Amino acid sequence: MAGLSLQAARPPKPTHLRIAESAVSGGARFADLGAFHAWFSATAERTRMRVERVPLDRLDGWLTDPATGNLVHRSGRFFSVEGVEVRDPDGPVPSWSQPIIHQPEVGILGILVKEFDGVLHCLMQAKNEPGNCNGLQLSPTVQATRSNYTQVHRGRPVPYLDYFRDTSRHSVLADVRQSEQGAWFYRKRNRNMIVEVTEEVEELDGFCWLSLGQLHELLTVPDLVNMDARTVLSCLPFSGPGAGSEPPAGPGHAFRAALARSCDPAAGALHGTGEVLSWITDVRSLTDLTAERVPLDRVRGWHRTGGRITHETGRFFDVVGVGVTAEGREVGGWMQPVIEPHGTGVIAFMVKRVGGVLHALVHARAEPGSSDVVELAPTVQCTPENYDHLPAGARPPLLEEVLGAGPERIRFDTVLSEEGGRFLNARNRYLIVETGEDADPGLPGYRWLAVHQLGELLRHSYYVNVQARSLVACLHSLSTPLPTGSRAPRAPR
Amino acid sequence: MAGLSLQAARPPKPTHLRIAESAVSGGARFADLGAFHAWFSATAERTRMRVERVPLDRLDGWLTDPATGNLVHRSGRFFSVEGVEVRDPDGPVPSWSQPIIHQPEVGILGILVKEFDGVLHCLMQAKNEPGNCNGLQLSPTVQATRSNYTQVHRGRPVPYLDYFRDTSRHSVLADVRQSEQGAWFYRKRNRNMIVEVTEEVEELDGFCWLSLGQLHELLTVPDLVNMDARTVLSCLPFSGPGAGSEPPAGPGHAFRAALARSCDPAAGALHGTGEVLSWITDVRSLTDLTAERVPLDRVRGWHRTGGRITHETGRFFDVVGVGVTAEGREVGGWMQPVIEPHGTGVIAFMVKRVGGVLHALVHARAEPGSSDVVELAPTVQCTPENYDHLPAGARPPLLEEVLGAGPERIRFDTVLSEEGGRFLNARNRYLIVETGEDADPGLPGYRWLAVHQLGELLRHSYYVNVQARSLVACLHSLSTPLPTGSRAPRAPR
Repeated sequence: MAGLSLQAARPPKPTHLRIAESAVSGGARFADLGAFHAWFSATAERTRMRVERVPLDRLDGWLTDPATGNLVHRSGRFFSVEGVEVRDPDGPVPSWSQPIIHQPEVGILGILVKEFDGVLHCLMQAKNEPGNCNGLQLSPTVQATRSNYTQVHRGRPVPYLDYFRDTSRHSVLADVRQSEQGAWFYRKRNRNMIVEVTEEVEELDGFCWLSLGQLHELLTVPDLVNMDARTVLSCLPFSGPGAGSEPPAGPGHAFRAALARSCDPAAGALHGTGEVLSWITDVRSLTDLTAERVPLDRVRGWHRTGGRITHETGRFFDVVGVGVTAEGREVGGWMQPVIEPHGTGVIAFMVKRVGGVLHALVHARAEPGSSDVVELAPTVQCTPENYDHLPAGARPPLLEEVLGAGPERIRFDTVLSEEGGRFLNARNRYLIVETGEDADPGLPGYRWLAVHQLGELLRHSYYVNVQARSLVACLHSLSTPLPTGSRAPRAPR
Repeated sequence: MAGLSLQAARPPKPTHLRIAESAVSGGARFADLGAFHAWFSATAERTRMRVERVPLDRLDGWLTDPATGNLVHRSGRFFSVEGVEVRDPDGPVPSWSQPIIHQPEVGILGILVKEFDGVLHCLMQAKNEPGNCNGLQLSPTVQATRSNYTQVHRGRPVPYLDYFRDTSRHSVLADVRQSEQGAWFYRKRNRNMIVEVTEEVEELDGFCWLSLGQLHELLTVPDLVNMDARTVLSCLPFSGPGAGSEPPAGPGHAFRAALARSCDPAAGALHGTGEVLSWITDVRSLTDLTAERVPLDRVRGWHRTGGRITHETGRFFDVVGVGVTAEGREVGGWMQPVIEPHGTGVIAFMVKRVGGVLHALVHARAEPGSSDVVELAPTVQCTPENYDHLPAGARPPLLEEVLGAGPERIRFDTVLSEEGGRFLNARNRYLIVETGEDADPGLPGYRWLAVHQLGELLRHSYYVNVQARSLVACLHSLSTPLPTGSRAPRAPR
């Protein structure tokens, strides 16, 4: 062998079983979540951020390119607000144009994990973002754009970044580029990483270690676990052989058993993985949506007045400016444009048990900012108000079914926030609704997938969109039995 | 179960073992390859294509957009020749611009397969393309752009297309969107499909059934198996459990055993699959190459004179026009621009056995037309003449090692053509060179991968570039023991 040795196809320690264990464990850092909330409030006191609205033409450091109307940073870095011209001849709106954020730089969203008393813990950060409706939210260990960590804005170095920039001494549990909101970003992607360490790690101010069980419980708190944390958590390798071999007990055990079985590739699925891949290829190849970047001053139906950019109907979103004065950040203060959506969205998975294996209904959805036309989205993903002016046939399928579901069918129901670094008060109601085994809407472009299939797709880029990834994190949170009361009125049968 | 049944994670019939069997079998249609060559020559007699050079400004149906200088078809379909502005601050040439083909439409490259006497056969087409140096080459069953099959040019319908457009009655062995030459195409991709049928299929004029063993032998004939056939063949699922369980006999058996073992995921690999995915993510995230589409009349260093577009040094390629008069095609005659590269390229895999398992050295390579910055390329992929003007340090690594390898180390060595529908006389010398187990160039951006790992990546889009896919097809061809003499001077030990 001459000094070379082959790695076994599977690592000696089954990470997915350690993850499952962490999901039913309390934490070593906080004995209970009361202690966490006390820490979190104290951190909020210390790290205040003042955010005020600023007209777009008064944003320090930003200028309007006279040739295009695009909003750009004078350094040429960070991001720009440009236009996109969309053609979707088979869609309810055959063509439109809109502002869109162009951010070619790829940042790092990373969670550091480490075993304490044999239980995996995640190092989470209490972090302010200007667009957060409530200031502080729970973020990944590292959440850094390339401009951040190459110090374009000459702020402080990003804590813990080195664990993700040089992983050679550590164990990489996940490392994959994933897309973000395809309706607001042009081909934005971030690197989602989970790195496990065994060495001592200093817990800096504003950071804390939480078990997955604790994080799962915190996912039921409105606007607490932020989007970046959710997308990274969705990339944790929950699936693997024997995932469903220890049947859960307690309230909701049958549902949790179906979820655990769904994490085991040996449990099978309604459609084989080759069939799923072929279906995605087919939808990508047959969907005619094209999106071309255009100068911002060429978007039709949008107007720049009163220091913001607004659609003539008042629908969709505005582009507005904010000025930030912060403590506990890399830099003390800055200004930037953000997208402020109108209305609270609905993001829902319909799930069902098939032969005792949980499946989620995904939708192959085309969005202007997608890298390859289509990604897998939740069963429902929309802001209902945006459809008011369209004919009834254009309303999103299954929206009424999801909103009208009785409490006995609702497994998850929490309003959570989208990325507060680019979006202002962007909130969505995340729902997981169970339906009977016979239910099948029979819609083209929709398929029932087992959870291990979503897990396999999540190892690769641009299959599962950011909203669906958030819901995957919420779905896995249901493997954690909650204390009596906290999810009781909606406890699964 | 209410009528629903779960599909097993693995199909009942192991396709990869049927593929391995076909690779060591003769064919049902032609008793030997002499009969094939006779058929092929007769077909060539009947389907002549006359190709003549036409100045770019005299191409019927094409015009030069006055605002951009782009060469576009008057229908707005097919493809256009535009410009691209490339920045690669860490590369040997930090920035350049060049003409590039923009073809947003996704075509289908499909091979129909069917068992005859229990052996899988591929339905191949003898097809002329204007850029082929020798007229007829062996193509997939279907090779159709979307403009082709939606009949934009009002030609005849594409034979066998329905098998690929509606697969519901058939078995899909592969179905994945893959990229093409990233140096000449801006984000071009085609849908690579392999569909198995059990029903009767009429063998139309110009089509024939070949076993994989026969196709593998034909891969040693210069300029015969075309690029589209090679890329589709590379997507065949060769890998699976037990792939290496029947040790081959005869000359070169040890090499073929190492290749067969490399198709078995249980045989392991130098780097685990998670590690490989993380490495690809890392290179994609750290590579700073950007490529922006620009108007063709803004590319620097290129001139449109004498009816063609040429680089001022005479290097790289020209854009030229051709006029085609054909029989046996969808339309009788047409004109189009094509890319005419200068010089014959070298495309090589260095391979070695590690613990008896064959590994290939891949290079994570950034190209202007890549969808996500980097794809896995061969160990060597270059046209040596293009580097003459650059300092020695800019010469491609390992080029000398590959070209200087003794005959006892050469496992494959054939000049093959690139896509004759877009490229004129584009030929590359495809090489597979074996090296000792201890050899490791230790270059950043290179990794040794087992063949089953390449197979797993090939189920997904944009991991393995078109040159590497061609070589994967050539590598698999080495599982076929050739008749004495045909590869004898280079027979593996």
